[in-house]
Amino acid sequence: MSDAVELAKRLIACPSITPARGAVFDATEAMLRERGFTVDRFIAGEAPDGPVENLLAWRGEGGKHFAFAGHLDVVPPGEGWSGDPFGAEVKGGVLYGRGAVDMKGAIAAFIAALDRTEQKRGTISLILTGDEEGPAIFGTRALIDRMAQHDLKPDLCLVGEPTSVHRLGDTIKIGRRGSVNIWIEVPGTQGHVAYPHLADNPIPRLVRALAKIDAIVLDQGTDWFQPSNIEVTDLEVGNPATNVIPLRAKARLSIRFNDLHKGDDLAARIRDIVLAEAPNAIITPRVSGEAFLTEPGALSDLVAAAIRERTGIEPELSTSGGTSDARFLSKLCPVVEFGLPNATMHKLDEAVAIADLEALTAIYADIAQRALG
Amino acid sequence: MSDAVELAKRLIACPSITPARGAVFDATEAMLRERGFTVDRFIAGEAPDGPVENLLAWRGEGGKHFAFAGHLDVVPPGEGWSGDPFGAEVKGGVLYGRGAVDMKGAIAAFIAALDRTEQKRGTISLILTGDEEGPAIFGTRALIDRMAQHDLKPDLCLVGEPTSVHRLGDTIKIGRRGSVNIWIEVPGTQGHVAYPHLADNPIPRLVRALAKIDAIVLDQGTDWFQPSNIEVTDLEVGNPATNVIPLRAKARLSIRFNDLHKGDDLAARIRDIVLAEAPNAIITPRVSGEAFLTEPGALSDLVAAAIRERTGIEPELSTSGGTSDARFLSKLCPVVEFGLPNATMHKLDEAVAIADLEALTAIYADIAQRALG
Repeated sequence: MSDAVELAKRLIACPSITPARGAVFDATEAMLRERGFTVDRFIAGEAPDGPVENLLAWRGEGGKHFAFAGHLDVVPPGEGWSGDPFGAEVKGGVLYGRGAVDMKGAIAAFIAALDRTEQKRGTISLILTGDEEGPAIFGTRALIDRMAQHDLKPDLCLVGEPTSVHRLGDTIKIGRRGSVNIWIEVPGTQGHVAYPHLADNPIPRLVRALAKIDAIVLDQGTDWFQPSNIEVTDLEVGNPATNVIPLRAKARLSIRFNDLHKGDDLAARIRDIVLAEAPNAIITPRVSGEAFLTEPGALSDLVAAAIRERTGIEPELSTSGGTSDARFLSKLCPVVEFGLPNATMHKLDEAVAIADLEALTAIYADIAQRALG
Repeated sequence: MSDAVELAKRLIACPSITPARGAVFDATEAMLRERGFTVDRFIAGEAPDGPVENLLAWRGEGGKHFAFAGHLDVVPPGEGWSGDPFGAEVKGGVLYGRGAVDMKGAIAAFIAALDRTEQKRGTISLILTGDEEGPAIFGTRALIDRMAQHDLKPDLCLVGEPTSVHRLGDTIKIGRRGSVNIWIEVPGTQGHVAYPHLADNPIPRLVRALAKIDAIVLDQGTDWFQPSNIEVTDLEVGNPATNVIPLRAKARLSIRFNDLHKGDDLAARIRDIVLAEAPNAIITPRVSGEAFLTEPGALSDLVAAAIRERTGIEPELSTSGGTSDARFLSKLCPVVEFGLPNATMHKLDEAVAIADLEALTAIYADIAQRALG
């Protein structure tokens, strides 16, 4: 029986910068086969958003089906680490390495937790992708398709993202806001500023549209979600000449929205505003995820109970922050996210306290045990 | 006695891309010394806007002082000419070459006109710079200083810019609008779009300021000027990340204004509007010229009479178009601009009709003769 620290070190030592391939999957597959799992590894997609490696594993058959989901890829380490980002060094009770909290630590904890879980009945599965940090087009979505082929239908799903903020256990995510990016391009007619009647400046039309968009109040939030929010994230004209009226003007919006909205509806609303000011504008929306909510209930109670038992903390049920693959999994079954403190995620010297890793292992074991019934 | 075509060919054959130096000045100096002019050539300024070569020439002393002003530099030819842009070829009654109309043709016509002008009394001067098409910091401005050193004070000044539009003689410029460019930078606090409360997006403040600026009506024009006009010529954020609230947002304005305004006053007005929306904005104005007007009167009558006599056309008195060095000369004395048809200026295959060059020579001779009294 290995402990979570040992497993986490083995995973961190595989430099699986997104999209992850090969070694980190070999290591994970070996760990799971050792523990009696059936493993299906497969490659999905093509350039530019693929190919992506994915791993589906399951043990047991029928009964309650509890799934654990996560990703084996990590963001690039960047320059300036105190040590080797893939060295997996332990110093002063802390394990350092890219992926230590996001989220190889959690995967290691879950695999170690399997050794403490008595699986008399029911099914446990792991849904692990090599592309969560990248385009995520051929990652968890492909895994969901693959599960259908194997007739695997989880009843509950836990995503091991680092949701804790100040202390392990302080936050569970029960939903995420949706996200839509919208590109706006307003064409005009280039000309000399001294002869404006011979030109057609696209900037005032864009500015008027953006001023109207800025005045929108989408909602006041809900019981579980903060208010939806629109940000203009970029403006671009690219005209170096002070005496030239430019040919086109562009802007980009990012809308993070709660479950009162759908991405396509928001895009249509923005389109109407822009076209009213600039009838020839080109509007290109890309919905990267709809809002989802797992209403507080059996699953969140179960996770909260395991956390409370181990740490004495009553976790906050949150829907804040960015998107995650939970948005895809929420179509399968109730899903909540719970994992390590996220203070160092994506940063230099990413690190997890050994004590947190061990506590998380105990909590995950408790959750799995309760989930199997 | 050379004719204007011959002189123009000699000037065009010197490839004097802005800033002009050397050969084109050698040729011009020789032409003027031959005609009894005292010539003062000098270099002004330092990098980045210099050094610039300039030439001041004068003949006669006291009495009425008539000055002709222009520039020996040309804009780059660009790719795609039918022949050599500095070949000065004549085909089908047309002389081709960069500078043919802007404005070596006019300088040649004026020098040829000197041979037809009887200068019994009075002073004739030429004020020629090698940098009108560039920054123009050390060109005509330095020439004006140099004139003061020689105690040269013109009573009337004719600038030989290509003011004619459809036919030689149809347009005299009696003024020009002023020009001010204003750079606006709104700082913010960068952050993740999912956590807008931790960031401060500068774009909405910039957009609101620009929407207010867009709504400004500066004036309705005057008897001699079209309405003043504000154009937003650039927007820049430069944020490639769809999920990032950017650090700063920038815009650039160009205001072309008539003689109801001063550049600094307009800049102050824009500053007030921007600071009301974005108190921490950085506003950087650059006034490149004030509006000026030579009220229709003796000088414009004199030029119009010479045009009418030669062509039968009643010229329009205009203040339209971009800026020119006349904005500096207008501080010395009444100044009007009159020259060749401008259809091909700054374009490929720039060309002047031989007939226009000869007619312009006759008109310039008539103007000089009338100006000397």
